[in-house]
Amino acid sequence: MPARALLNGEPAPASAFDDRACHFGDGLFETIAIRKGQPALWDWHWERLQLGCQRLGLGPPSATLLEQEVQYLCNGLERGILKIVLGAGKANAGYVRDPQAPPTRWLRASAWPDAHPWATTIPLTVVSCRLRLASQPRLAGIKHLNRLEQVLARAELPEGVDEGILCDREGRVIEAISANLLVRMGERWITPPLTECGVAGTVRRQLLERGPALGIRVAEDAFDLDELRSADAIYLTNALLGIRPVARIDDRELPAPVRDEKLEILHRSCFTFSGELSCKE
Amino acid sequence: MPARALLNGEPAPASAFDDRACHFGDGLFETIAIRKGQPALWDWHWERLQLGCQRLGLGPPSATLLEQEVQYLCNGLERGILKIVLGAGKANAGYVRDPQAPPTRWLRASAWPDAHPWATTIPLTVVSCRLRLASQPRLAGIKHLNRLEQVLARAELPEGVDEGILCDREGRVIEAISANLLVRMGERWITPPLTECGVAGTVRRQLLERGPALGIRVAEDAFDLDELRSADAIYLTNALLGIRPVARIDDRELPAPVRDEKLEILHRSCFTFSGELSCKE
Repeated sequence: MPARALLNGEPAPASAFDDRACHFGDGLFETIAIRKGQPALWDWHWERLQLGCQRLGLGPPSATLLEQEVQYLCNGLERGILKIVLGAGKANAGYVRDPQAPPTRWLRASAWPDAHPWATTIPLTVVSCRLRLASQPRLAGIKHLNRLEQVLARAELPEGVDEGILCDREGRVIEAISANLLVRMGERWITPPLTECGVAGTVRRQLLERGPALGIRVAEDAFDLDELRSADAIYLTNALLGIRPVARIDDRELPAPVRDEKLEILHRSCFTFSGELSCKE
Repeated sequence: MPARALLNGEPAPASAFDDRACHFGDGLFETIAIRKGQPALWDWHWERLQLGCQRLGLGPPSATLLEQEVQYLCNGLERGILKIVLGAGKANAGYVRDPQAPPTRWLRASAWPDAHPWATTIPLTVVSCRLRLASQPRLAGIKHLNRLEQVLARAELPEGVDEGILCDREGRVIEAISANLLVRMGERWITPPLTECGVAGTVRRQLLERGPALGIRVAEDAFDLDELRSADAIYLTNALLGIRPVARIDDRELPAPVRDEKLEILHRSCFTFSGELSCKE
């Protein structure tokens, strides 16, 4: 008997909606800023994707093939967003992967969302979320497709709030829902360690790797919500935001960010292909 | 600029691979045994799906509509498997759901896998897994689509082993990868509590709800791996297995299961539509 399927009430081939990404969240993704026809911070995105494949036991896509597809979609786009989803391929009956089924590569280039608060340069408003991130070292750091915690946390945000701060169950601050945290406490720059949960973002990596050349040394160190609320400055970082100041967390207004030329150089570098530092505006 | 997409290197409509199920594992599923043209234990499956919708903030599908679709697919099938995936609908840019986008209903009926070890009545071989389940009470009990832990645990199993036992990080036994546990210790029947992690299976529910009428009272109680290994009897339970004895866990052979007529009645009831108990073979 051949399998029969219905998709929203209509007969559908059993192959529709058939990827392990849809059944188990078995796969990875990347969200990449496109600037001047190029995927920004490409090396960090590609390295994280490879690390994710290794952790999930997926064969990584051919670098050449993926780069060709990325270039095809970025070509001619002055500003845009590239999303890559790497699904674990055709689903069979259960959790065992079919070793013959190749992974699914889905890439989409879309317009830069000029109207979205994220696309502006306005400092962000954040609140702390009630949801606590579960600790799972086997999945920490990689950008996998099991994102229900983020979906639930996002649903907590009141209208007009841009982002939510997530802690683990021990009360350690980990990240924002879709961004990492860069925090200034006195003379120190700090970002939370991500060995138990959280996504190791590409801009976070840019800060850790390229910051020292500018004298910005970011330490991975744990802190709690009270410490975050009393920080001297808070920034959210991700591939679309770059490095963006936070204006308010819960009931506390933060001081207007002091202009920091080094941070601006790092911010701009996050929207270039290679991430190389350049002092030109 | 309209979005452009590639699926495995071929131009694809941006709408392909576009459900939140594929991007975030944002959704739910059910796996149901079909017997004599009917979905077995339908009420428990439907109630769990509704509970999952409530927890994830999804509008549940119309009961009438879903039951019509289920009946359409089960019709005329003597034995089969029905899978339902309820995705959170069209994905937009981020974790916020589009309140206008209706959930996606995907249902597939396929043949009963007679050749699969699960489709036999042979006692199963299990090993304990290294992977520890993360604790996330917001997702515990429901059958959501974030299943990477199960995928990783399944990949640990050596050839010829049927299932894996999963503990949480405190060392409490929670479940098997795709089944719940029913354990006999002396005069007691025990199954682990699922308030922190794990899926509350329909057969587990059948045991808790209908067992007492037969004098089988199953307590929800915590135990560790050593206690499990020294149990008098272990059964795995799920919608496709019913109640199936375990023959071996790690290095320990379990005594051949004593025939228990009451357990057999419960087992058979798991393959009927209503789950009502019947003493007829």
